[in-house]
Amino acid sequence: MNKTSLIIGRQPLVEAIESGRAIDKILFQRNVSGESIGEIRKLAKQNNIPIQQVPPEKLNAITRTNHQGVIAFAAIVQYMDLQQSIDHIVSSGAVPLFLMLDGVTDVRNIGAIARSAVCCGAQVLIVPDKGIAALNEDALKSSAGALEKIHICRVNSLLKAVDTLHLNGIKVFASVMNAGTKVFELDFTEPCCLVMGSEDKGIQPYIAKAADQHFSIPMAGDFDSLNVSVAAGIILYEAMKKRNHDLPDLKGL
Amino acid sequence: MNKTSLIIGRQPLVEAIESGRAIDKILFQRNVSGESIGEIRKLAKQNNIPIQQVPPEKLNAITRTNHQGVIAFAAIVQYMDLQQSIDHIVSSGAVPLFLMLDGVTDVRNIGAIARSAVCCGAQVLIVPDKGIAALNEDALKSSAGALEKIHICRVNSLLKAVDTLHLNGIKVFASVMNAGTKVFELDFTEPCCLVMGSEDKGIQPYIAKAADQHFSIPMAGDFDSLNVSVAAGIILYEAMKKRNHDLPDLKGL
Repeated sequence: MNKTSLIIGRQPLVEAIESGRAIDKILFQRNVSGESIGEIRKLAKQNNIPIQQVPPEKLNAITRTNHQGVIAFAAIVQYMDLQQSIDHIVSSGAVPLFLMLDGVTDVRNIGAIARSAVCCGAQVLIVPDKGIAALNEDALKSSAGALEKIHICRVNSLLKAVDTLHLNGIKVFASVMNAGTKVFELDFTEPCCLVMGSEDKGIQPYIAKAADQHFSIPMAGDFDSLNVSVAAGIILYEAMKKRNHDLPDLKGL
Repeated sequence: MNKTSLIIGRQPLVEAIESGRAIDKILFQRNVSGESIGEIRKLAKQNNIPIQQVPPEKLNAITRTNHQGVIAFAAIVQYMDLQQSIDHIVSSGAVPLFLMLDGVTDVRNIGAIARSAVCCGAQVLIVPDKGIAALNEDALKSSAGALEKIHICRVNSLLKAVDTLHLNGIKVFASVMNAGTKVFELDFTEPCCLVMGSEDKGIQPYIAKAADQHFSIPMAGDFDSLNVSVAAGIILYEAMKKRNHDLPDLKGL
């Protein structure tokens, strides 16, 4: 753990959040209380920062400084608001190609997925605030810097994010094993968001249900088990090809 | 390390090799000598098993048993002879789709690549005996069992393997960054072997030179850095699509 990414104590944390610094997670000592704790709770809610209650030993193991029952981890990446990202992408004249990760837990898979997203022209990565690998130094390294080249929107509800996408006219395509529609049959020319599920369980049923279309990657044999970052790469590659992307190399596909 | 995969001592190793057991690597204590050492060297050469000279401390750290200056690691996967694999694939009526890994050093990338290979109908994985991640328990786990579902040919010279492929009418396509030919322009319907290079350096120049065709994956932006297992997955997916593979879902692509 990079100690410089720690924010220790109540007032430093309030100031960090108010200054717009992105925070990955706040640890509260169990039963901590006080006026500034209420303020931190309020700021955390406004900024989609998850709070975790932990025993005092956990905080003491992280730092020997007087932490006042509060330690936070500064985010390595800068999080964006989903609606603001959509507005920004659309006003730039680009057709949204977004990627939503529902529970990918391996830091290196996240890094590889971010690389594919940037390589294939996706503009936004939507991640939940819980149940996903931390976007930490290891993730950044695995991504070869790609996590700094894409909008990352952290949301406290993927279902609400799907609503936001729908309200903005963005179709939601969910990668679901054995779905009848194949990835190359999708209409990637329209504004769309691809959803990938976790390594072991796939997409949560209520998210899959909210999607406009399910699709799968065809397989040559009866072995049907692509690594999630490879699957995401293949899907993003198909999207890039279908969009043609104004690259001379890709004309006339 | 799984201790059960160790073979300790001279005679046990001679017997293991003679019984056909696949060996990943032999460690010789520096300056070790004796009649059975000569026999092991001969057997190792015949079976493409790399030998590494190490100080006695290294062997003593691995086992407290009397190792007689010799420890070997049994292979988790079964290696096949390249020519025998080609004969087997061709006589089964399949069109060879092989994958050669020139120096992929990350166990998890190897695992992910093996999954993609099996999913996309590749039949053979060609690996060098040095400079590649060990095909150990971690690789097998990362591969979700795929390493047991594909022929793995370990060769002591990738260049000789390219010769063998050529003698059997198998084209060699090398993935080289910025190559003018794009992956979707390759003729995957002919017998072919795809070559992927290492994570940092790509394919060695003399291997790239021996290839029939260089190709690259198109990129949407100026960020050009796919994870090697994702790149392999995209290429194998293109090959599968182009071959149609007699899958109902893939007809009429």
